[in-house]
Amino acid sequence: MPADPLVKGLLAGDRMALAKLITQVESGAPLASDALRVIYPHTGRAIVVGFAGPLGVGKSSLISRLVTFLRKKDLKVGIVAVDPSSPFSGGAVLGDRVRLDLHPGDKGVFVRSMATRGQSGGLSQGTRDTVRLMEAFGMDVVIVETVGSGQTDVNIRDVATSRVVVLVPHLGDDVQSLKAGLFEIADIFAVNKSDLPGSSDAVRHLREMASIMSSRANWKPDVVECSALNGTGLDELWSKIERHEAFVRQDEDARAESKERLAKELRELVSRKFEVRLSSMMSEDSKVRELVERVQEGEVDPYTGSELILGRFPTRRESPRRR
Amino acid sequence: MPADPLVKGLLAGDRMALAKLITQVESGAPLASDALRVIYPHTGRAIVVGFAGPLGVGKSSLISRLVTFLRKKDLKVGIVAVDPSSPFSGGAVLGDRVRLDLHPGDKGVFVRSMATRGQSGGLSQGTRDTVRLMEAFGMDVVIVETVGSGQTDVNIRDVATSRVVVLVPHLGDDVQSLKAGLFEIADIFAVNKSDLPGSSDAVRHLREMASIMSSRANWKPDVVECSALNGTGLDELWSKIERHEAFVRQDEDARAESKERLAKELRELVSRKFEVRLSSMMSEDSKVRELVERVQEGEVDPYTGSELILGRFPTRRESPRRR
Repeated sequence: MPADPLVKGLLAGDRMALAKLITQVESGAPLASDALRVIYPHTGRAIVVGFAGPLGVGKSSLISRLVTFLRKKDLKVGIVAVDPSSPFSGGAVLGDRVRLDLHPGDKGVFVRSMATRGQSGGLSQGTRDTVRLMEAFGMDVVIVETVGSGQTDVNIRDVATSRVVVLVPHLGDDVQSLKAGLFEIADIFAVNKSDLPGSSDAVRHLREMASIMSSRANWKPDVVECSALNGTGLDELWSKIERHEAFVRQDEDARAESKERLAKELRELVSRKFEVRLSSMMSEDSKVRELVERVQEGEVDPYTGSELILGRFPTRRESPRRR
Repeated sequence: MPADPLVKGLLAGDRMALAKLITQVESGAPLASDALRVIYPHTGRAIVVGFAGPLGVGKSSLISRLVTFLRKKDLKVGIVAVDPSSPFSGGAVLGDRVRLDLHPGDKGVFVRSMATRGQSGGLSQGTRDTVRLMEAFGMDVVIVETVGSGQTDVNIRDVATSRVVVLVPHLGDDVQSLKAGLFEIADIFAVNKSDLPGSSDAVRHLREMASIMSSRANWKPDVVECSALNGTGLDELWSKIERHEAFVRQDEDARAESKERLAKELRELVSRKFEVRLSSMMSEDSKVRELVERVQEGEVDPYTGSELILGRFPTRRESPRRR
C-alpha cells in the first residue's frame, strides 16, 4: 500500500491527486521521485501516441476530434501538450488565444500542458513522468502533442511509441525543407484538411516518399486523409495507430529501440540527479564554497578545483525530506 | 619543471607543441587536464578580446588588419576562431571559401579554429582552454572570434574580458532586432566599412543607444569608426580596448563578474568530468550494465535504477592513463 496519500488517490482515480503529482514532477519536488517509483509497476499498458506537426495544420483540432472518437469507444484519454502554441496549453505563444477546454466536464479526459520555460533539458523527463502518471491514473490512451523534433526540448521519439505527423495539402516552402526530418519521426502521416483541393496529390506524394524513406527499419509510414473540420478519417487514423502498436510489440528492432530509450532515460536521470545534488553541494558544503573562493583568488586552478569538488560528491542518497 | 615534454615545449615557445596541446584539449584527451593544470600559473596576463558580429560585416578582415597593427607594435597575437563561417576556420559554412592564412610565416601569430560540431556544451570550455594555452605560449593578445551570443555554444562573455561587436552602417532588419542583445555584450562597437554612406548616422545612433544601454554597470560602450578596407580606425580601436582593459582591472563590478565567470567554469568542469566518468562507468562497470538491463527488462524502475547507478559513481580520480 503506498504511503503517500496522493499516490493512493492517483491509483484510485482521483483527478486532483493526478494534477498535484504532475505539478510535483514538473517542479522537481523531492517526493516526486518516490511517487514515480511506486506507480511505475502501474505503467506501460496505455497506448502512447505522439502528435507532431508545424503550426497551423490543425493538430489540436484533430486531436480533439480523435479524443471524441475514443471516448465513444469508452477509452479514457490523457493529453500532454508540449507545444507552447497549442490551445491545450493556453496558446502562450499566440498570446490572445483563449484556453480551449475541449472536453469540459468529461471525467474520462485529462489535459495537461507542460511549462516549457526554464526547463532546458528537463522537459523530456517531465513529459515522460507525466505520461506515466496518466497511465497509472488509468488512461487507456495518452496523446503527447509536440511541435516536432528540434523546436522544443522534447524529442517525440523519447516519449511516444507511435508518432503521428500532421500535415496539410499545401505546405509553405519552409515546411517543405523540414519534410526529410518529419520522415525520420513519422510512423503515420495524417493529412488534415483533406477537403482542400490538392489533397489527393499531397497524399500520393507522401505515399511515394514513404515507400523510399521510413521511420523504422521494417515499417513503411501509413498516410491517412482526414479532416478535423468534418470529422472524417478518424476511424482509419485510429486503426492505423492500433496496427502500428501491434507491429511495435512484435518487431525486433522496435523492441531494441524501446530498450535504447530506457537506457537513454536512465542516463539522463543519473545526470539530472547529479546536477541537483551538485547545486546543493555548491551552496551548502562549506569546504566546496571555500574551494570556489580559492579558485577565484587564483590560489587553485579550476582543473584541480573541479577534481576536488567532484571528490566530495556524496554518492549516497540523503533521506528524502518530507515537506 | 613540467614532466610533459609538450608542456615544456609550449612554455619554451614551440609552435608544434602549442598545436598538439590544443588538439588534445579539443579531443578531451586524458592528459589535457594535467597540462592545463601545469600551465595555469602562466596564464592571466594576456589581453583577451572577443570579436562578435553578424555574417558579412567584415569581422575577419578587421581582425586581420588589427593583427597587422599589433604586430607592428611587436605584440604577439593568438586568434581563436569559433565562428564556423570565419575564413580563419576554413569557412566551413560557406563551403567553397578558401582557407585564409592571413599572416603566413609570421611566428608571432597563431591562428586556431575550434571544431564546432559534436561539442555541444563543451565548446566554451575548449575555447577557454585554448586561450590559456595561447597565453602560456607567450601571446600578448588573444582574439576570440565568435558569431555573437546564442548562435554557437560559446558565450563571448565566458571567454573574453573585452568584447568588440562589429557592425556595418546598413544592417538588415533581421540584425536590427538583434541589436538589444548586442548591447548586452558590447564593451566597444566597431562600425566597419565607415567609408560607406550613412556611417556617421549609424555611429550617432549607436552612441545614442550606448548612452542609455550598456554592457556593464559603470561602463558606456565606446563606438569606433573603422575600415578594414582602408585600414583606418585601428589605432583608435586598440586604444579603446586598452582603455577598457584598464577599466576592468580597477572596477569592482567587473572584478565580481570575473569571479562569477570562474565559479561558472568550475561548475561546468565538474559536470563535464562527471559526464566523462559516467560514460565509462556505463560501459565498463558490469554491475551498472546489469542494472541497465534490469531496467530494460522492467525488473527495476528507472528512478531507482538511476539512484543505484549514481551510488556507484567513483568520486576518487583514477590515475591518468598514459597513451
